[in-house]
Amino acid sequence: MSIHDDNHLHPSAAGGLDLRLDAANAPSWTVRAFKHVSYEIRICQNVLDPACADLAEAASAGRSRRRFVAVDANVERFYGDRVRAYFDARGIDAHYQSVQAGETRKTFDTVAELVRGIDAFGIDRRREPIIAIGGGVLLDVVGLTANLYRRGTPVVRLPTTLIGLVDAGVGVKTGINFNEQKNRLGTYSAADLTLLDPSFLATLSRRHVANGLAEILKIALIKDRGLFDILEADGAALLESRFQTLSGTATSAAGSAVIQRAIHGMLEELQPNLWEAKLERLVDYGHTFSPTIEMRALPSLLHGEAVCVDMALTTVLAEHRGLISARDRDRVIGVMTALGLPIWHDVLTPDTLMGALHDTVRHRDGRQRLPLPVGIGDAAFVDDVTLPELTDTVLDLAELARRRELARA
Amino acid sequence: MSIHDDNHLHPSAAGGLDLRLDAANAPSWTVRAFKHVSYEIRICQNVLDPACADLAEAASAGRSRRRFVAVDANVERFYGDRVRAYFDARGIDAHYQSVQAGETRKTFDTVAELVRGIDAFGIDRRREPIIAIGGGVLLDVVGLTANLYRRGTPVVRLPTTLIGLVDAGVGVKTGINFNEQKNRLGTYSAADLTLLDPSFLATLSRRHVANGLAEILKIALIKDRGLFDILEADGAALLESRFQTLSGTATSAAGSAVIQRAIHGMLEELQPNLWEAKLERLVDYGHTFSPTIEMRALPSLLHGEAVCVDMALTTVLAEHRGLISARDRDRVIGVMTALGLPIWHDVLTPDTLMGALHDTVRHRDGRQRLPLPVGIGDAAFVDDVTLPELTDTVLDLAELARRRELARA
Repeated sequence: MSIHDDNHLHPSAAGGLDLRLDAANAPSWTVRAFKHVSYEIRICQNVLDPACADLAEAASAGRSRRRFVAVDANVERFYGDRVRAYFDARGIDAHYQSVQAGETRKTFDTVAELVRGIDAFGIDRRREPIIAIGGGVLLDVVGLTANLYRRGTPVVRLPTTLIGLVDAGVGVKTGINFNEQKNRLGTYSAADLTLLDPSFLATLSRRHVANGLAEILKIALIKDRGLFDILEADGAALLESRFQTLSGTATSAAGSAVIQRAIHGMLEELQPNLWEAKLERLVDYGHTFSPTIEMRALPSLLHGEAVCVDMALTTVLAEHRGLISARDRDRVIGVMTALGLPIWHDVLTPDTLMGALHDTVRHRDGRQRLPLPVGIGDAAFVDDVTLPELTDTVLDLAELARRRELARA
Repeated sequence: MSIHDDNHLHPSAAGGLDLRLDAANAPSWTVRAFKHVSYEIRICQNVLDPACADLAEAASAGRSRRRFVAVDANVERFYGDRVRAYFDARGIDAHYQSVQAGETRKTFDTVAELVRGIDAFGIDRRREPIIAIGGGVLLDVVGLTANLYRRGTPVVRLPTTLIGLVDAGVGVKTGINFNEQKNRLGTYSAADLTLLDPSFLATLSRRHVANGLAEILKIALIKDRGLFDILEADGAALLESRFQTLSGTATSAAGSAVIQRAIHGMLEELQPNLWEAKLERLVDYGHTFSPTIEMRALPSLLHGEAVCVDMALTTVLAEHRGLISARDRDRVIGVMTALGLPIWHDVLTPDTLMGALHDTVRHRDGRQRLPLPVGIGDAAFVDDVTLPELTDTVLDLAELARRRELARA
């Protein structure tokens, strides 16, 4: 039975092996199977409280008490003691590996270090999930490692940054950079469970909060005008408060609302297209030019910052095409600035951007499939951006950024 | 709708996004999706005949005329000119990368070389499949590269060895060795099309034909007594004739029958368990001790040779347990020898084998799940092999191998 059949058979009967003979009696076999993927993302306050079983018991059903725990080196400085106390209290024999996880360390060397550590500790294939604690880079690298290790070992993710909470921790992409190309190697592989604890944001630097706000803004711009309104009203305050209440002991109501709304919007886009069968993806907004911008600017721009520069550029381009009004363009640029995000970087030249577009066209199988904002909260795809148009756009954005700088000075 | 539902909804309605709130109003999301996997394996004589469109048109529907072609360096020496003439005649702009593909080169370095080559040539993400031409190692490494490149690029496989035709080219496993562990890193990823052309066997060395016969013998031993009878009667002749007719211009009838029967048996086992959800796998027969044997003996044993040593060992073990008669054990060992395969290697010590079993137990999630032959053509799983039992078995096999050597001398 194939998914295209029109009869109403039970899906568990799906798949099969067909043997056909051609006119010359040469056989061919077709193997058909359905892989059922299911993964959970759970908001879980104070996940390192020893009273909270979620992290220790995830993906194992309590059958094994050994865990390999990969921790971002930065996170370890703030939370290392609490992580150790947590697993001790839960009776887990854990091995901790500290991982330097900046964008320049998103490499196969880091995967290799992890594999050597896992081999030395030794884990069972299915019931001893790898635990990943850190930001987006760590989640991507450990996710790839777990997917490759013995062709697939379960993984439980605990994002500690805002971009981890709303972006890297929500989807199924893993990856490493290679040959100076962003995420050139990777897989689609779901973590068994991702636990989202916004209390980690309390110790996050302002810049890394802004980094996550860029991906939240992306969701607002392409599909959620209400979320944009919240960011416009409260974004700057959320940035300063790190999404916490005034007392700093809990996530603020506005913070919770923004995070949940961003995640829900992201998942609505991802779920029907988990393996990117469809290459027109609204969530690719801000990700057309940014892979090249980010790699060229390395290490000066964080991922969300490069995405924001891309969104600033394409907002200006959309305004040139009459897709968004000058007033709304200025509101968008204004929110970017209020969120502490850059709208310009000196690597932006028309030639660099055409090169970026060329690689993205290969990535989108021969067409630009470029999402552009239509007003605020909607988007459309175009295929016909040219070098002259990009040149005009870059000049305009440079002028706009220069005027903003002057106004601030 | 999940695959576990008992209602009879249309499968295309499968998948979805669930949002739940717990007692404290904390949300959790569950993403569910079905991935439909379908792949074809086609017997195709004289695939490099320019009149044969299969290889050039596979997985592209004729939309693009560019191909990145990874060719095993050994294959290139014999067939390089014909491969080039073929793609030229079919109007394909092909870039050829020669790959040293022995077991010691089944590494990330080889993946990295391929990625640099693919980046330099530049391919579209979906419509310019990578072509892999070579033996099992090449198919595994190029398969992994294609799976990782941009998180998945189509691949068309053309096995040129017997083990490629009946084993590596039939399943969905990709992999590289790492940290002295066989296939420590890899994925499950189906090639879009695999074309099986037994005419390549005409130029294969006797040893590499034997290497493939080991995997055919495995299928015979675990599930196909009729195939065993054919190997016992005709295996030695197939080895000498390289599966070709006396004139050497076509596959022999016996050769075709053996290949088709082995492939069909293998696919019957793989299709219902494509992602190894079930860790009791009959096709793991011969693959309990052999990963360690093969890596320790590197480069002295080919994959199929290490598998045969494992099968000889476990046949003797099965005889000790009364699962197979002494007469059938001798028939099995006799066929192994007739097929030019080893039944012994000096790395076989009880300690090494216990270490191998320990790693396999991790691989099979905490249990041995060791397939053992039951007579000829059937098998059962056991979980209770001990060091004393292994020691007895090794001593017995050593004695058996010594007597065979003496008899031959």
